[in-house]
Amino acid sequence: MTFRVGLLGHGTVGAAFHELLDERADAIEAQVGTRPEISGVLTRSRGDFDDILERSDLIVELMGGLEPAREHMLRALRAGRHVVTANKAVLSRHGEELFDAAREAGVQLRFEAAVGGVVPVIRVIQETLAAAHVDRVHGIVNGTTNFILSEMARTGASYEQALADAQRLGYAEADPSEDVTGRDAAAKMAIIARLAFGAAVTFDDVQYEGIEQLTSDDIAYAKEFGLSLKLVGTAERIDSGISVRVFPAFLYGEHPLASVNGSFNAVTVESPKITEITLSGPGAGGPQTASAVLGDVISAMIPPPTLMPPAREVPLVRDVESAFYLHLEVADRPGVLAQVAEILGRQGVSVKSVIQHGLGDEARLVMVVHPVLESSFRKAVELIGRLDFMRSAPRVIRVIEETF
Amino acid sequence: MTFRVGLLGHGTVGAAFHELLDERADAIEAQVGTRPEISGVLTRSRGDFDDILERSDLIVELMGGLEPAREHMLRALRAGRHVVTANKAVLSRHGEELFDAAREAGVQLRFEAAVGGVVPVIRVIQETLAAAHVDRVHGIVNGTTNFILSEMARTGASYEQALADAQRLGYAEADPSEDVTGRDAAAKMAIIARLAFGAAVTFDDVQYEGIEQLTSDDIAYAKEFGLSLKLVGTAERIDSGISVRVFPAFLYGEHPLASVNGSFNAVTVESPKITEITLSGPGAGGPQTASAVLGDVISAMIPPPTLMPPAREVPLVRDVESAFYLHLEVADRPGVLAQVAEILGRQGVSVKSVIQHGLGDEARLVMVVHPVLESSFRKAVELIGRLDFMRSAPRVIRVIEETF
Repeated sequence: MTFRVGLLGHGTVGAAFHELLDERADAIEAQVGTRPEISGVLTRSRGDFDDILERSDLIVELMGGLEPAREHMLRALRAGRHVVTANKAVLSRHGEELFDAAREAGVQLRFEAAVGGVVPVIRVIQETLAAAHVDRVHGIVNGTTNFILSEMARTGASYEQALADAQRLGYAEADPSEDVTGRDAAAKMAIIARLAFGAAVTFDDVQYEGIEQLTSDDIAYAKEFGLSLKLVGTAERIDSGISVRVFPAFLYGEHPLASVNGSFNAVTVESPKITEITLSGPGAGGPQTASAVLGDVISAMIPPPTLMPPAREVPLVRDVESAFYLHLEVADRPGVLAQVAEILGRQGVSVKSVIQHGLGDEARLVMVVHPVLESSFRKAVELIGRLDFMRSAPRVIRVIEETF
Repeated sequence: MTFRVGLLGHGTVGAAFHELLDERADAIEAQVGTRPEISGVLTRSRGDFDDILERSDLIVELMGGLEPAREHMLRALRAGRHVVTANKAVLSRHGEELFDAAREAGVQLRFEAAVGGVVPVIRVIQETLAAAHVDRVHGIVNGTTNFILSEMARTGASYEQALADAQRLGYAEADPSEDVTGRDAAAKMAIIARLAFGAAVTFDDVQYEGIEQLTSDDIAYAKEFGLSLKLVGTAERIDSGISVRVFPAFLYGEHPLASVNGSFNAVTVESPKITEITLSGPGAGGPQTASAVLGDVISAMIPPPTLMPPAREVPLVRDVESAFYLHLEVADRPGVLAQVAEILGRQGVSVKSVIQHGLGDEARLVMVVHPVLESSFRKAVELIGRLDFMRSAPRVIRVIEETF
């Protein structure tokens, strides 16, 4: 008996998936009892979607982009076909429409390859942690930016130099904006939050910042506090709501994500009963993504469907507590620290540690403050920025403290 | 509709599971459509197995020990009931009998909680990597020994001191032999190897060594080579066979397991298409194990069964290549290094780095050698041990090199 797989898209990942499926078909048949076969391939220049849909039990969507990918997936689900996709753009913007269609048709919509490269974060949240109440997910979910930040830390290179290296080595695209602005990570965190909290989070709900403004001297100063810099996605419960954000953050050395370097991805899931699980592995490449897609295809070959429950309404929290790193270039004269400390104190900001660097034109105050509501801290920074001894704008980076 | 769960055993884990199931029953019913309920509890002093079996859709076995746990599980499976267990002793010794019974009855036998604490290594190997050809699994699968070794490295304590600390803090039992001899880790690696390679590996097939012979000065010397000491389980393909072993090993700093400290567990799965996935989290505690058990119960509530394919016959390889750390206490006189090097050379052992320590009665040669067949290296060490300038027996610890 064969299980017919219609393949939409035949670029790097599509071709790798096609090859891997052919290579592993015997082993899968031995295991599952059914043999997967490609029943048709749709590319820009060949194939007809309706014809492929007719001859398939499952559609693998690897075209990327919003349309016609969304339309094809929706039609496949409504026609009672399982769908496996790596399309984070569609899932993070039109997820509910697709989840609803899958639930109504009683078919599977699987998307492990959309988030975290080979790291099986989707399956672990959906299945291993099905019984758990997830409090927080922290993720390094973009390999390009993690590579750039690792290089900046390792070599002292500037952002521009490290980006150029990443492009030369194939870790960043010619137009890197989707990665370096945090947009790619934001889409992935929206999907993770949808799963972890059952809330209808979309891309537009995610507050995100990129890494373009980061300087190598911030990384160097922060080392003195034992901190390493990552582009971190967080999805967390706060009181009765949730917050989903992506931002550059310093991590203390003991944090499980602090040692994740190069183009690796990693996700830490926190839940009171289990404390935490950390998953790590290479970020997406063609063969890795193809492997995740094939794992989903095999799971879909074994009925019945794992259905996604309808989303709940949960308020989004936008002002969140966090610790911060603050870098101030100041004039070298008495009373500077006292004035800064007074403004911080008035806004309820408590300093954890402070280092004075340099003399004269090189003088700077570098500090880490205890967790405080972001709006209070920003207010203090705004006031500090107006002081007459400031030689440039204050630089702020969040600091994530390990909770265990 | 209710899903009736019969619970065998009501110790720490059993009681934690009972409590967790009651707490999460509403959430599970909302998600799965069926409500799990404890239909009966068997302890040494109360309950009747036949009666509980009759009134259950699934049996959770948390009694531990070989009998009557094995007999109860077998009878439950043959009576068409799903079984969820955390019993590594039974699975690693009588796994095939249970897997066969589950396959014949078409019911599920799930055991995530038997290996790796909250780390979902079973599900990831069985499901995420269903399509992958796994080459090697490295695991830190015993939290007690990892805690002891972490303490020895952190504080310089002796094995005896660190064990006493672990006992005082509840990380080691009064009789720690199951953990410190490597037996517990060996049972877990047998289960992992069964899954990863589809071969009928049992506890008796695993070569294991414990941590009782380790000294804190080996840990200190090895730091100079950038090495950290762990009790590592390995399950790997070698030519047409497999090797499954547990032994203390030094890891280079870049290895994903090198930074796993305290009572944490972690597993790295290597496969050519995906390179590697690392999973880490706290080792087993009552609530953690209960959470893994409940995850399995929920998966079993969603039919049809994930069946374990029959095992294949695969030869066990017992002589394996490895790099080694070698510590020699020698007399402080000329020609010592030359004689050692000559013996190593004749056995085909190539030295990677060597440090000479101390003078006079403190003189020692500490070295790391390149990977070599273990039998050749042992032969060389035996010959070196007979040299007249040796002040004590050579000390040998394997070194694992990161393959990526």
